[in-house]
Amino acid sequence: MIADRRRLVAGVLDGDPRAVARSISLVEAEGAAAADVIKGVFRQSGRATLLGVTGAPGVGKSSLVDRLVTTVRRDGRTVGVLAIDPTSPFSGGAVLGDRVRMQTHTGDAGVFVRSMATRGELGGLARATGDAVVVLDAAGFDLIVIETVGVGQAEVEISRTADMTVVVTMPGAGDGVQALKAGVMEIADLFVVNKADHDGADRAVAEIQTMLGLHAYQPEAWRPPVLQTRAIDGTGVPEVLRMIDAYCARGGTEVGRRRRVRLEARVRHLVSESLLQHVEQQALEPGAFARILDQVVATEVDPYTAAEEIVRQAVSTTSPPADTVSS
Amino acid sequence: MIADRRRLVAGVLDGDPRAVARSISLVEAEGAAAADVIKGVFRQSGRATLLGVTGAPGVGKSSLVDRLVTTVRRDGRTVGVLAIDPTSPFSGGAVLGDRVRMQTHTGDAGVFVRSMATRGELGGLARATGDAVVVLDAAGFDLIVIETVGVGQAEVEISRTADMTVVVTMPGAGDGVQALKAGVMEIADLFVVNKADHDGADRAVAEIQTMLGLHAYQPEAWRPPVLQTRAIDGTGVPEVLRMIDAYCARGGTEVGRRRRVRLEARVRHLVSESLLQHVEQQALEPGAFARILDQVVATEVDPYTAAEEIVRQAVSTTSPPADTVSS
Repeated sequence: MIADRRRLVAGVLDGDPRAVARSISLVEAEGAAAADVIKGVFRQSGRATLLGVTGAPGVGKSSLVDRLVTTVRRDGRTVGVLAIDPTSPFSGGAVLGDRVRMQTHTGDAGVFVRSMATRGELGGLARATGDAVVVLDAAGFDLIVIETVGVGQAEVEISRTADMTVVVTMPGAGDGVQALKAGVMEIADLFVVNKADHDGADRAVAEIQTMLGLHAYQPEAWRPPVLQTRAIDGTGVPEVLRMIDAYCARGGTEVGRRRRVRLEARVRHLVSESLLQHVEQQALEPGAFARILDQVVATEVDPYTAAEEIVRQAVSTTSPPADTVSS
Repeated sequence: MIADRRRLVAGVLDGDPRAVARSISLVEAEGAAAADVIKGVFRQSGRATLLGVTGAPGVGKSSLVDRLVTTVRRDGRTVGVLAIDPTSPFSGGAVLGDRVRMQTHTGDAGVFVRSMATRGELGGLARATGDAVVVLDAAGFDLIVIETVGVGQAEVEISRTADMTVVVTMPGAGDGVQALKAGVMEIADLFVVNKADHDGADRAVAEIQTMLGLHAYQPEAWRPPVLQTRAIDGTGVPEVLRMIDAYCARGGTEVGRRRRVRLEARVRHLVSESLLQHVEQQALEPGAFARILDQVVATEVDPYTAAEEIVRQAVSTTSPPADTVSS
């Protein structure tokens, strides 16, 4: 690892916000530098609580996260916030802009806020988010909030990065409840009905409770609570934090299981990327991949048969080092 | 291939709608049956025009597609429509329900309509869509419309399945134009301002033209036209079809390039899946993957180093068949 990256890693482990910001930019870009950063900081990670916050636009997610940050800070704990916008593929790194968000926390070294979007595929954004979480975790933040805009498939994938997911809705949000019905139920560990002073708050709570009632929970399982908040003045937010702490205190097994699933997916992806590269660059004869692909493009060979042929060639031509031949 | 699947493949090639529907269900589920179907039909594919249609909810995409189908049928050409909803992860296979969509075409054997959603990850939906297109193509449909709901990252990924992408918007759709600004510009080959009888239609066209003006097109490049329609009574729809045909007539190189990119991604994905399976089941010692993963979960080894170790073990223990040792 070059000296510059070693300094960067040291900066992250010291909690230096500039080193954290620079490292997150590197993991967004993926590549060798990202690998160096994660290799350098990973062993200091695994201590933070990872909280996903999702919900339809307009329900007040950002205000809720803002208030939650204030409440967490009052406890003396530190918070990193990643605001992810998977619906904004080409905006290139900023949702609402870090400047306009969370202005109340400017100058507080215990709060770090960063927006992330993607220029490439969604899988890339989900992986970059996972690595950014490792950076914030290693930098010592106690709570890491992963806020996603919307309630679609993209958010579901990103929510897999979290230990616990809070789904935010509001009274009369036809859309919000529709989305819940469509299945965001399955990712929620906690529901928050924000703007609880609006008409219909109790009805929204009752609707969610009814939907939860249709689900068969094991006696010992966590049944997602439904809380009401008014993020604009902070009403109900301390209770949200208490519930998060309660979940994390008892949710050890489930949190551990999700962490394993998440790390397994990450390792698998890295392995398959690396194997593919090995096959194309070393195991296959030069040009073999392109020749087989030509046949697929010409509709002479289907993609499945092509893939089988490539794997057959790759596996049969990989030469073992002399000392490991065992057959 | 078992006899049942051979009959299914023959049914698809005959254009039998039940065989087509059953095959699409198989590719949605992925797995061995999907591979058999695609292997069986792929060589008869590659003839259809693949049209992506996307745009924010409410702009009238479905009505436009409905009218387009009518117009295409009047020409004597056949159409398959795949309605994809990536925002509905758990609805399990139906967006608006095939029953309520496209009722005007019920009983017309030249039209096939199918909704697709996902229960798993988005990548899986994009792959299933790609395979469903192959099935419809091999079944002989001349035009295949891939309609996606929304304008987010998910739609961008699915739009990669198409030869040509139509972005639909409407006058005064603040959201629509915002979304365009955010970058859907980059995937559009044709813009349609629907509900062109509403106030502000000319302004919407002018705004899109202005945005296109900021983009440096090569002299010989296709500059996305901007058309106006009123899908509810069909106004402007024949012109949309003419433009699609014009694009496909001249767009040979670009269409061919996209097809190659798409097939290359498909083959690569199949190769990496198969390599990963080979490594876990044959190349590594039993339990080796799980042991390395345990170390990652315990934060003793980072995911990048773990992946390198797995690939090193896999590559060094793969034994070549005797007749191919060449080193």
